[in-house]
Amino acid sequence: MIDLNRRGLVFAAGSAITISAVGLPVLAATPGRKLGYAIVGLGGYGLGVIIPQFKNCQHSKLVALVSGDPVKAKRVAAEYGVPERSIYDYKNFDSIKDNPDIDIVYVCLPVSMHAEYTIRAAAAGKHVMCEKPMAVSSAECEAMIAACKKAGKKLMIGYRCHFEAYNLEAVRRARAGEIGKLRYFRSEHGFTTGNPNAWRLKKAMSGGGSLMDIGIYALNAARYMTGEEPIAVYAKETTDRNDPRFREVEDMIEFQLEFPSGVIGSCMSMYSANQNHVLLVGDKGRIDMEPGTRYDGNKLWVGQDRSNPITPPPGPGATQWAGQLDHLSLCIINNKEPIVAGEEGLRDIRIIEAVYRSAREQKRIALV
Amino acid sequence: MIDLNRRGLVFAAGSAITISAVGLPVLAATPGRKLGYAIVGLGGYGLGVIIPQFKNCQHSKLVALVSGDPVKAKRVAAEYGVPERSIYDYKNFDSIKDNPDIDIVYVCLPVSMHAEYTIRAAAAGKHVMCEKPMAVSSAECEAMIAACKKAGKKLMIGYRCHFEAYNLEAVRRARAGEIGKLRYFRSEHGFTTGNPNAWRLKKAMSGGGSLMDIGIYALNAARYMTGEEPIAVYAKETTDRNDPRFREVEDMIEFQLEFPSGVIGSCMSMYSANQNHVLLVGDKGRIDMEPGTRYDGNKLWVGQDRSNPITPPPGPGATQWAGQLDHLSLCIINNKEPIVAGEEGLRDIRIIEAVYRSAREQKRIALV
Repeated sequence: MIDLNRRGLVFAAGSAITISAVGLPVLAATPGRKLGYAIVGLGGYGLGVIIPQFKNCQHSKLVALVSGDPVKAKRVAAEYGVPERSIYDYKNFDSIKDNPDIDIVYVCLPVSMHAEYTIRAAAAGKHVMCEKPMAVSSAECEAMIAACKKAGKKLMIGYRCHFEAYNLEAVRRARAGEIGKLRYFRSEHGFTTGNPNAWRLKKAMSGGGSLMDIGIYALNAARYMTGEEPIAVYAKETTDRNDPRFREVEDMIEFQLEFPSGVIGSCMSMYSANQNHVLLVGDKGRIDMEPGTRYDGNKLWVGQDRSNPITPPPGPGATQWAGQLDHLSLCIINNKEPIVAGEEGLRDIRIIEAVYRSAREQKRIALV
Repeated sequence: MIDLNRRGLVFAAGSAITISAVGLPVLAATPGRKLGYAIVGLGGYGLGVIIPQFKNCQHSKLVALVSGDPVKAKRVAAEYGVPERSIYDYKNFDSIKDNPDIDIVYVCLPVSMHAEYTIRAAAAGKHVMCEKPMAVSSAECEAMIAACKKAGKKLMIGYRCHFEAYNLEAVRRARAGEIGKLRYFRSEHGFTTGNPNAWRLKKAMSGGGSLMDIGIYALNAARYMTGEEPIAVYAKETTDRNDPRFREVEDMIEFQLEFPSGVIGSCMSMYSANQNHVLLVGDKGRIDMEPGTRYDGNKLWVGQDRSNPITPPPGPGATQWAGQLDHLSLCIINNKEPIVAGEEGLRDIRIIEAVYRSAREQKRIALV
């Protein structure tokens, strides 16, 4: 019981947000209650990844769908036992306010639509889980936070790694001093993107390229692994604008983060090569994860090299997504702030904006 | 026979220096001749590492010693069969000009003494092998190159990794296109330095901290692995000046290299943590070495991850040092330029100067 509480605390160290640990005492106190989620967007992530996870949840259930494709929505509703009256489209979305089954709206849409649907959901009196990146700009993030605050509703960003067993164990060991004084952090996140017509490659819908999509994992890991907030960034971008995939968004961007303690972070984001690596080096050893932030198959080594593979204790949920979904449900039940609230998403977007500016201006950007 | 020639060629690709491949045909043509080396400096590297390597050489032999410690010199001479008349100190060093046994002077001294002893050796009519880093400044490097040129003598810098089997195999595979189009390079090199009184930590003797000593491996690898010369650098330094080890020189410095093709290099140099890693990522896979540049025990993987460990074919010598020592001997015998001539050392020092300047001024420095 202590373990999960400690984890919640250590994981969010360095965050300015209110820290609310999800602990077994809370879980034990509310065994029967499940809050209802409406999934907005039946694309690859919402339909393929999130919806199948409700079966692993203790405090969350699927109760509604929002989609522009009525045939698909009807099929999914039938498969997952969602009543037809709880299927919405983007026109009648606001009428969710009249559906008491829906406690939480999970926004799984292209990034450009996050702000609109978060704000509309809050206005409809619903709590919101919004996928990362939070929005296409920090101004939008601020508007989302303000809207949820005004409505008195929780806002959480879908940072699944904060509920993933290997990452939790890595953070726990870093905070416990197992690798000594932290010296530097490094992460590469990239994959080879294919279809040039994907919405992720359209700047108006995605807000940016690999950094918004996959590099954000490196950035977020830099913050949770070190437990610090960067004070300056420097970035270099390489994009072949003749490549049809990269007419609008960046391919590859390398950014260096300066942390107040002197720890240096170095992160690579790519749409043209496959990498998934998280490394934290201290003066006594290192914490190494490769892959580090995948859906599954993550690996962790602690020590001088890879001779000591670690199998972490279970995370707070049966899966990282179950942990994530139930965390928001429990925060609502217990009136606590999520450990990855809107402020966490805003923080990443502000740094991402500075990274883009640094790459554009070829200079160091101090973060205020 | 083809293999070694090809290696010599591919390894030096991207260099502006004259390329001279060391091949078996040359070795076969001169089986009996061994050139004589004088080792200057009987410290850890000269005495502990280089001198024991002559037994592995085909074209090089130990014929003279230069040391400020006559007792030590006499003992080493006796052990390795060097005649007493071929023991010198720093005062009578220039009289090596009268010793026909000495073909090559190997300068294994603190960095601040490299220029003086290289120039004096050339003036004495000897070829020179000089340890890396070449000198404390690019101005000194230029003077060393000019002195050897004026004397009509070869100058080679002790870049042992250019003769190390794993690194040669890594370069060969990169040039052969095994990982596709190159995207980025990364290397960390560091170790935990101990004794605050070591000459390496005295700026007047070392010219700088971890970057001059160990980070230069990352920099040099960035150049030989990509086969490109950087066009700009950006660097961030972290040094605790209250640590007695780091009163004069830097501890940790992270530098980013921009290459003309768009490849991005990211290198970390440290005196406060142990790392030895070389990674080259392409759009079809990666070449991964960890450790990558050690005296022995290096490892190499090629592919998507570490599932495919590579055992490379033998390098050009029985060991990386034998390959290095014999390379200069053969270049002299065949009147070819070393693949790591003075110009190679100068190139690294110029980049190192730009890295230091970037860290100092917190801005991107273009390399001219």
